[in-house]
Amino acid sequence: MTQTDTYVPGLEGVIAAQTRLSRVDGLRGELVIGGFPLEEVAAQATFEEMVYLLWHDALPTAGQLEAFRDQLAELRTLPAATLALLREAATSQTDPMDALHMGASTLNLGVTDQAGNRRLALRAIAAFPTIVAAYWQLRNGQTPIQPNAELGHAANYLYMLFGEEPQPARVRGLETYLNTVVDHGLNASTFAARVIIATRSDMISAMVGGVGALKGPLHGGAPGPALDMVFAIGSPDKAEPYIRQKLDRGERLMGFGHRIYKVRDPRADVLSAAAEQFYQAAGDMGLYELARHVEKIAVDLLAEYKPGRNLQTNVEFYTALLLHGLGFPTQIFTPTFAIARVGGWTAHCFEQDRLIRPNSVYIGAEGRTWQPLDQRINTAHNLHTP
Amino acid sequence: MTQTDTYVPGLEGVIAAQTRLSRVDGLRGELVIGGFPLEEVAAQATFEEMVYLLWHDALPTAGQLEAFRDQLAELRTLPAATLALLREAATSQTDPMDALHMGASTLNLGVTDQAGNRRLALRAIAAFPTIVAAYWQLRNGQTPIQPNAELGHAANYLYMLFGEEPQPARVRGLETYLNTVVDHGLNASTFAARVIIATRSDMISAMVGGVGALKGPLHGGAPGPALDMVFAIGSPDKAEPYIRQKLDRGERLMGFGHRIYKVRDPRADVLSAAAEQFYQAAGDMGLYELARHVEKIAVDLLAEYKPGRNLQTNVEFYTALLLHGLGFPTQIFTPTFAIARVGGWTAHCFEQDRLIRPNSVYIGAEGRTWQPLDQRINTAHNLHTP
Repeated sequence: MTQTDTYVPGLEGVIAAQTRLSRVDGLRGELVIGGFPLEEVAAQATFEEMVYLLWHDALPTAGQLEAFRDQLAELRTLPAATLALLREAATSQTDPMDALHMGASTLNLGVTDQAGNRRLALRAIAAFPTIVAAYWQLRNGQTPIQPNAELGHAANYLYMLFGEEPQPARVRGLETYLNTVVDHGLNASTFAARVIIATRSDMISAMVGGVGALKGPLHGGAPGPALDMVFAIGSPDKAEPYIRQKLDRGERLMGFGHRIYKVRDPRADVLSAAAEQFYQAAGDMGLYELARHVEKIAVDLLAEYKPGRNLQTNVEFYTALLLHGLGFPTQIFTPTFAIARVGGWTAHCFEQDRLIRPNSVYIGAEGRTWQPLDQRINTAHNLHTP
Repeated sequence: MTQTDTYVPGLEGVIAAQTRLSRVDGLRGELVIGGFPLEEVAAQATFEEMVYLLWHDALPTAGQLEAFRDQLAELRTLPAATLALLREAATSQTDPMDALHMGASTLNLGVTDQAGNRRLALRAIAAFPTIVAAYWQLRNGQTPIQPNAELGHAANYLYMLFGEEPQPARVRGLETYLNTVVDHGLNASTFAARVIIATRSDMISAMVGGVGALKGPLHGGAPGPALDMVFAIGSPDKAEPYIRQKLDRGERLMGFGHRIYKVRDPRADVLSAAAEQFYQAAGDMGLYELARHVEKIAVDLLAEYKPGRNLQTNVEFYTALLLHGLGFPTQIFTPTFAIARVGGWTAHCFEQDRLIRPNSVYIGAEGRTWQPLDQRINTAHNLHTP
């Protein structure tokens, strides 16, 4: 057992899990998921195949896939109480991630201890798209659309969001997105889910913890602004002056740079190709080409303004471009990220087999003695709220 | 920065936080909370004073305490949507911890990004007792009792649970319990809350993560069975044969031994004294004396059967005795634990100021290539669900 006796801020560099789910190599720009290089699997698998791969360490046979798909499809419908809560959430303009968070926690309604974690994991994966789509319909004054068990996972999500059976190109675009972000080592939300399941709590509690962590802007919370810059630029000739002005003012460019990848994020290439394919199928390459142009200028200027930092396009930039092309409103980009990542969270929870309990070091006072209320003087510290 | 390059199972021995909130010394059996030895503060402070101490590193003056108490008191009431959800949960016999979990997640209903984490922390602390009490009333076919803003935090919880203004001895007993378990270093639920808030997510999401982790039987999930043994024994003369029989069969004694404390858990003494005081005030020392006798026999026999292990009475044993004496049903022992610990979780979240993101090490396959569905053979691993 390795022991450290000093505080490790953010647990940086500490290895907290062994996993066969994904390998992230930030220096080489590599991502392996379920034994496949990302590029090999993301644009070919359905989301159901991807989750099956993570759970069982192998692609399913035709029979296994059909059974798995059916199990998921029959768990999509929400209880009336969940829909009633989402209706209230819509009335009070609750943030869509908070709506997913509270909707997800209701998936334990009526669950008894006997319900196994495998079933609860299926339930979470199956129900997340229904929660997000129902909430989005309610937010727009519409009636939620019932899930269609004939459709696959991704196609049904699009159907519930947009009210019509989606074209194959659109389904493929969404599945490639979901597969690309389904797992990514021990990110903060995955780690939160593992910490929770590790007390032998239930799978739904762990998934809700994952949603709660993913909501934070340091994690999954900000894929919208990356595309805002492309819209603000509007035409190729304005890219360079716009970005120079931003960098001159010391502003950050959203969609560039990543905590782990020091070279190009491998997910950016996969999502870029998926976006290109979809915009081509949709017959309008304008936004795609503008985005590529903006990206090139931004990477070049970042190299000029911040030499040695090697700031590359990250996953958020092409997530925004692809999801926007598929018709998704910015407000549900992060909930859609959760719809993908819940697949990875469940698989990590199946791997976690012991309590996670690091230590803290005490830096507070010692030996204080009780003072009656009327003898106290004001020594309170101001509270710094994160 | 300290770095390890090997897997640290459970992060055992790794220091993941600096805190001025509490110091746990398992070898010496010491617990310091907010600079006070536990014994100095637990039986004197109100719960509001205790939370104020954790937040501000000082006991409040009379004026500060009054303001803090008022802020909490006015945030107790639940939205109608939360009550409707709890009603559904009661109808389907949902576990009380799951009911608290889903009720807590609704505290973000209508919250906008502008609501600060301090206010959300007050909201969580104030509303947890209302959720638990309302759920318990609904489970028993009763109408939830509205919170009474004239009463302090602990007194109001008792009032909502039992429908009458509690006697001072009962309030004191509950406050001593809440203070004793309000914080305990970097336990698993506190760590879960820190991991979530660290992505700059919101306070409610972090508190819900704490509830999810606390639910697990490896953490807060099992204070009931400790007392079951005392009831099963029934009279002092049966203690020794009963416990010998259990130990001869290799069964575990609930309520004895702790992961961290290698000597007597300091919380056991505080709760034992609180129980003694309350049972005395209530005029019936029978159960208390039986429990003390059972404890003595159990510790002696554990020393005989498991020499060198030094298995002592833990906090669960006296939690069960005290809460039972105060009239709490076993099913809400763990939710009441959460009502206390939410105070510690909030304070830890205020301290957490950076992302927590340890690494994982990949132990899976490499270089797999895609196979079309009709060419696959069955190589799926069985799933081991935790």
